[in-house]
Amino acid sequence: MFNIALFGCGRIGKVHAVNIDAHPLTQIKAVIDPYHEGAAKLADEYDAEVMTTEEAMADPDIHAVVICSATDTHADLIEQAARAGKAIFCEKPIDLSLERVRGCLNVVNENNAKLLVGFNRRYDPQFRTLKDLFESGAIGKAETLVITSRDPSPPPAEYVKVSGGIFRDMSIHDLDMARFIMGEDPVSVSAHGSCLVDPAIGEAGDIDSAVVVMHFESGAMATIINSRRSGYGYDQRIELHGSKGMLKAGNVREHQVEHWGDESCAAAKPQYFFLERYKEAYIAEWQHFVDVLEGKAEPQCTGVDGELALYLAECALESLEMHQTVKVN
Amino acid sequence: MFNIALFGCGRIGKVHAVNIDAHPLTQIKAVIDPYHEGAAKLADEYDAEVMTTEEAMADPDIHAVVICSATDTHADLIEQAARAGKAIFCEKPIDLSLERVRGCLNVVNENNAKLLVGFNRRYDPQFRTLKDLFESGAIGKAETLVITSRDPSPPPAEYVKVSGGIFRDMSIHDLDMARFIMGEDPVSVSAHGSCLVDPAIGEAGDIDSAVVVMHFESGAMATIINSRRSGYGYDQRIELHGSKGMLKAGNVREHQVEHWGDESCAAAKPQYFFLERYKEAYIAEWQHFVDVLEGKAEPQCTGVDGELALYLAECALESLEMHQTVKVN
Amino acid sequence: MFNIALFGCGRIGKVHAVNIDAHPLTQIKAVIDPYHEGAAKLADEYDAEVMTTEEAMADPDIHAVVICSATDTHADLIEQAARAGKAIFCEKPIDLSLERVRGCLNVVNENNAKLLVGFNRRYDPQFRTLKDLFESGAIGKAETLVITSRDPSPPPAEYVKVSGGIFRDMSIHDLDMARFIMGEDPVSVSAHGSCLVDPAIGEAGDIDSAVVVMHFESGAMATIINSRRSGYGYDQRIELHGSKGMLKAGNVREHQVEHWGDESCAAAKPQYFFLERYKEAYIAEWQHFVDVLEGKAEPQCTGVDGELALYLAECALESLEMHQTVKVN
Amino acid sequence: MFNIALFGCGRIGKVHAVNIDAHPLTQIKAVIDPYHEGAAKLADEYDAEVMTTEEAMADPDIHAVVICSATDTHADLIEQAARAGKAIFCEKPIDLSLERVRGCLNVVNENNAKLLVGFNRRYDPQFRTLKDLFESGAIGKAETLVITSRDPSPPPAEYVKVSGGIFRDMSIHDLDMARFIMGEDPVSVSAHGSCLVDPAIGEAGDIDSAVVVMHFESGAMATIINSRRSGYGYDQRIELHGSKGMLKAGNVREHQVEHWGDESCAAAKPQYFFLERYKEAYIAEWQHFVDVLEGKAEPQCTGVDGELALYLAECALESLEMHQTVKVN
Repeated sequence: MFNIALFGCGRIGKVHAVNIDAHPLTQIKAVIDPYHEGAAKLADEYDAEVMTTEEAMADPDIHAVVICSATDTHADLIEQAARAGKAIFCEKPIDLSLERVRGCLNVVNENNAKLLVGFNRRYDPQFRTLKDLFESGAIGKAETLVITSRDPSPPPAEYVKVSGGIFRDMSIHDLDMARFIMGEDPVSVSAHGSCLVDPAIGEAGDIDSAVVVMHFESGAMATIINSRRSGYGYDQRIELHGSKGMLKAGNVREHQVEHWGDESCAAAKPQYFFLERYKEAYIAEWQHFVDVLEGKAEPQCTGVDGELALYLAECALESLEMHQTVKVN
Repeated sequence: MFNIALFGCGRIGKVHAVNIDAHPLTQIKAVIDPYHEGAAKLADEYDAEVMTTEEAMADPDIHAVVICSATDTHADLIEQAARAGKAIFCEKPIDLSLERVRGCLNVVNENNAKLLVGFNRRYDPQFRTLKDLFESGAIGKAETLVITSRDPSPPPAEYVKVSGGIFRDMSIHDLDMARFIMGEDPVSVSAHGSCLVDPAIGEAGDIDSAVVVMHFESGAMATIINSRRSGYGYDQRIELHGSKGMLKAGNVREHQVEHWGDESCAAAKPQYFFLERYKEAYIAEWQHFVDVLEGKAEPQCTGVDGELALYLAECALESLEMHQTVKVN
Repeated sequence: MFNIALFGCGRIGKVHAVNIDAHPLTQIKAVIDPYHEGAAKLADEYDAEVMTTEEAMADPDIHAVVICSATDTHADLIEQAARAGKAIFCEKPIDLSLERVRGCLNVVNENNAKLLVGFNRRYDPQFRTLKDLFESGAIGKAETLVITSRDPSPPPAEYVKVSGGIFRDMSIHDLDMARFIMGEDPVSVSAHGSCLVDPAIGEAGDIDSAVVVMHFESGAMATIINSRRSGYGYDQRIELHGSKGMLKAGNVREHQVEHWGDESCAAAKPQYFFLERYKEAYIAEWQHFVDVLEGKAEPQCTGVDGELALYLAECALESLEMHQTVKVN
Repeated sequence: MFNIALFGCGRIGKVHAVNIDAHPLTQIKAVIDPYHEGAAKLADEYDAEVMTTEEAMADPDIHAVVICSATDTHADLIEQAARAGKAIFCEKPIDLSLERVRGCLNVVNENNAKLLVGFNRRYDPQFRTLKDLFESGAIGKAETLVITSRDPSPPPAEYVKVSGGIFRDMSIHDLDMARFIMGEDPVSVSAHGSCLVDPAIGEAGDIDSAVVVMHFESGAMATIINSRRSGYGYDQRIELHGSKGMLKAGNVREHQVEHWGDESCAAAKPQYFFLERYKEAYIAEWQHFVDVLEGKAEPQCTGVDGELALYLAECALESLEMHQTVKVN
């Protein structure tokens, strides 16, 4: 049984708490959150203790940390955990500053720490199936990837201000997904954007609608279509067009019941948001981390993956501002 | 060029008029209808003459008759045309009385007349594709056929009174379709029905919702689901389940545009009614009749097919009344 | 925490074991199975004890029994549990003899025992959504129900011999579903069948393909299409046609990835069988039983429901043999 | 009755010949093609005469010209027809040189000639329905347009060499479609491309896979995904995402029959190529030109539309070469 210290009791912390608890090989031993009431409540629910960061890092019975706290604490906690010899699961991003990410990863490497970065969509059964079929040769060589990724509704402008912007906050998942599906790295990034959904987002210096086009070494191209608002739930689709056909991962609908009436034949909307759509992905992701803890697997999504996704987001931002294609080094 | 005498200028007569005129090898020479104004208008539109039945039958320049007049005139017209040596296309049914049908077909046979009975759905590209795939072995041996056939809205009770009832008027198409798809004849019929759509239909002594189950020689079964009203257009679907899988002919939608909104992902309804759904079928049916006229083909849907469909409809009626399965002789 | 005695360690027993264990309010205390090795293994896995039936019934710490043993033990175990004051969850059927079922239910009633009969499909999210939409008035008054229910592949003839036949073993789920969806009881049953899938099933005196048509008090009709083999997975669909439109519960596919290639646009098959398709239904069913244990709910699927489904299966068998519609008393 | 002179007897000329002939208000009077045998055959089929360009232009009985000849003849024929007072239907493009197009349009304007440019997709019932629904307010304000447009298989390199390149030859349809759907003009164009399908296309100096992103005055964005080969037929789809939801025009499939088997649930591929997919569009386009001839409508797709689409194609080419976004003046 692996004892876990959980940092952060917010929405995503609770998702992981359920999965840690449900897994036969893991249990929550410590909960750490500056919001004491939340920490106490979660600890109580899972028979865990409330600890300080220092206590958790010092506790030899804690095998791994799960970092779901505020973004600006991630890098520090990763470094402390690496030095304390804990295995590390960290929600994306490692940090909003690429320099800070690189410094942090140096510490991880120096301590030979196991670090899994939480790009949850890599574990989504739909996208996995698409990737597996692609790798089995179903459509030949990859040519064009199109990722559609729209949130159901925009975040508050306050969140946008500290989010690092749409590329670092939202598109980063799709930038990582493009690398994951294609199995190669982009050589250039070209980004386009507008503020169409909420003027407050524009006033916060961000955009809410984006299109990113990337070229890969092989000549293949990937296009990412993002919006902070769909109007019909969480729109998460992938089309991979290859030399012999296309694979198309559709949305997961709320249910399979259609209503045929005098206006239309209506099917259910996509599942509302990430808690619903990626529920199975989070469970599979946790299983993978347990495999890492057991020594059965190396992290599939490493610090370098986190760094590269952030770097691509920065390239996108630069491209947006310069109105030109940016080379990826 | 084949000259055609068209009997009946109603809705279905006009459908055939368009197709006769559009075909490079056929033209309307005579229009016959007791409603003179309608006949005159149609004749004018297609540069044809208004004739009496006698004139048309006597005209040696008329090669074929197309019978779209009232049901109770069909058998007489067929007989006259057979005796006059015309090729005959007759809308279903030949007559509502099985005895009369048999008498009529005797005349047809005695005169070696070519008779094509108008079960238009046999020429529907969807159902043809299903039949072709089945015959090519795609699903092995046929086991269970399910035909869903629902009209968009019920006819007036006046029509129902002279229609011969739902089995002779509406289900007859599906009874013929079952024979057509399966390529064998039923050995028993079992029918069930209710009056659920319009009480006036019940008062007219008919039902408006029906389920018919048939057994075939091979042991295969066919189920027909009928309703006089769908609430969402013309519902025309077939499922053929075989030893190695299933073929499923879906509806043809009004268009291919979906509207994803905050309530649902809405697709278009099925095409409204037979004029839309079977437009291509009527054209293909006419092409087949031209092939018959040219001597390139024998009628694919003969008087015997018309007789058998009517006989099955009578068996269904008997089964409905007796609450038991009726053997087909 | 409710302590559960689990009778039967087969496939379905294991499904319930997982759900009992995962629920925060229930745990397996006793495992009872004549196959000692299986019982010991399951008990070991869930920190439970292997007991005899007598020990389990006598143990005052056991609050409820879950009966997943061989069909011919169900009625006896229900009676013993009722007398011992346990709440009872019993997999369908209570017994294959209607008389035995009635005797058993008398004992249940005399002891005021809580009995939930395991028609798992009632808890399927797809069918629940269809029922909820229907009850909210989405399609007006119910007119025609069509249930398609095909197993992926036929059971061995040995199983067929002790199964009670297709109606008692397989169609019984659909007969119950028809009552559940329609919210009323049938007044007549008419059944049709053939042996098309496996001659050994016919030699065992059973059929493997069936169509059952039922009339309800309201005049509405239900049609059930069954086959012991689909060739493409577990085909579980419902169409409910009403006065204002239709609700259509489709299959749940293995995944949402389509492969567009030079032959077709291929989507995934339906989930393979009941373990996959009804996984969520079993969890929801167990939640309902816990609600019953907590006194928050009365059993939604009672002994009477079990009795009626079996009675309808017997009516179907009688109808099949007599080739006529059988009235339901 | 309007008499038409048809220039060019190739694939697209034959499409228009059928539609001209089938329309009750138009007939082919003259056929002009340097390939005499083809011209004679077509003229014979439609009871028309073979003429020289000069004869056709001089014939006062010819009301309109339909230009389906080689691209490099379009501008000259338009000018001659404009001077001869004929109404003009010209297949795209007017010319591959923007300067030549502008000169040609000057002649058209000086002579007040009616000119309809043949962007056939504007008349496609699917895209029309999408546009109509958008304009009726179904999804609020337009935000992101995604046009997927993939040919079934690449043209020969010889064709590519004289085609003007993928943007002028293929994407031009999508550039026009973007303007048509959005109802506004782009302010910038950014293009990306690779040669992935056929090295011979690359050797001819062209690309075969392209992504074009455009910004509009309103801030809305359009993305065009092109490939010279799909592997599964003609892939013609549009997604228009707005402030209140999305409209999605899907492909038109070859048929509506699905084959459910042990590998998948397979639906039919998209219709093969433009002759099939846009058959109805060509008929509707011709109807529109007849409306123009009758004075009932002004050309919906003018010389300016042709010019702008070509200009956007040139911007795309410049963007591709410069690796930066190009402003549209």
